[in-house]
Amino acid sequence: MGTLTAPAPWKQLLLGAMESNSHLRHSSYIQLATIGCNGRPSNRTVVFRGFQEDSDKIQIHTDRRSRKIEELKNCPFAEICWYFTDSWEQFRISGTVDMVDGSNPDPVKLEQREKSWFSTSLRSRLQYLGPHPGLPNLSEETPAQVFLDPSAGPAAAFCVLFLDPQQVDFLNLKSNQRVTFSSTQSPNGDKCWTSERVNP
Amino acid sequence: MGTLTAPAPWKQLLLGAMESNSHLRHSSYIQLATIGCNGRPSNRTVVFRGFQEDSDKIQIHTDRRSRKIEELKNCPFAEICWYFTDSWEQFRISGTVDMVDGSNPDPVKLEQREKSWFSTSLRSRLQYLGPHPGLPNLSEETPAQVFLDPSAGPAAAFCVLFLDPQQVDFLNLKSNQRVTFSSTQSPNGDKCWTSERVNP
Repeated sequence: MGTLTAPAPWKQLLLGAMESNSHLRHSSYIQLATIGCNGRPSNRTVVFRGFQEDSDKIQIHTDRRSRKIEELKNCPFAEICWYFTDSWEQFRISGTVDMVDGSNPDPVKLEQREKSWFSTSLRSRLQYLGPHPGLPNLSEETPAQVFLDPSAGPAAAFCVLFLDPQQVDFLNLKSNQRVTFSSTQSPNGDKCWTSERVNP
Repeated sequence: MGTLTAPAPWKQLLLGAMESNSHLRHSSYIQLATIGCNGRPSNRTVVFRGFQEDSDKIQIHTDRRSRKIEELKNCPFAEICWYFTDSWEQFRISGTVDMVDGSNPDPVKLEQREKSWFSTSLRSRLQYLGPHPGLPNLSEETPAQVFLDPSAGPAAAFCVLFLDPQQVDFLNLKSNQRVTFSSTQSPNGDKCWTSERVNP
């Protein structure tokens, strides 16, 4: 351990799995579990949108009006389950989630949100202009055509989640090996990771 | 509603998705979220082992020594996230979990457990004779060859989970349609399902 933050030791394993499964469209689909407002588990598929620059924080895009936002406000803890169907590797990544929508007071975070918005396809962006997710669908017709200016900034409903990993459980079903990675915060705020081989 | 229990309306949709994705080995892999003993979400991949006979209860095999058992004892609620990678359909199935291991006092449940045991491959059964999952792996060598008598009944660690669905959220990403199914218990104990189209 020096004054430089060492890269998280599980990140290299995860990048390797992403690389070896990259021919599969669904290899960036992950399951995000949260605590529901009724105290029960809540679980859904979301898309991995890359790491936050120079960090091991995981980015996810979501609609500010979706139920997970309310849930994460009540309890900021989440666990991602990421199973790679070709290499038979599983990563369970647990940590806390920071939510960044247009009301965020931090100009750096607002800039990251804008960058995320422009990194997505026009089709993805259109979703955030649609009706409130989860509310009753009353119309029988197809929704009216919505025009989206490609140069327009983030829609009000566009929200970026940053999951800051605190613990990672890695399982390789081909080699039948399992490793847990745990982090502790050093006095200067850097994360320090330790790992242990455990029985699968 | 008559005196007969109507089949759950989401079950037909799920059977259809299973059928159209059956060429993919991983189509029976599902993510099970529970509440961790620290109150944080917990999420892992498990295998769908079919419905309990004549019901909509979902069967999962697990090791009695795994962490999810302790978690489910503290909080019996779980949510399955089942994403079908070929048909782009997602089922979120939430409900309560009943655990059946060898100490169960109900002879009918013990019989179901035995049936589940013999329905699995010898390779799967061997897992339950291995070391305690999640504990530090101390040996550098490959484990000693374990002989398993194919006619021997369930290992002590073999446990069957039965998830009894109470709510199902179905999303079809190709047609962009979403339906939520909710159940209520009728006075005679039968489940009664209602459904509603909601915005995706």
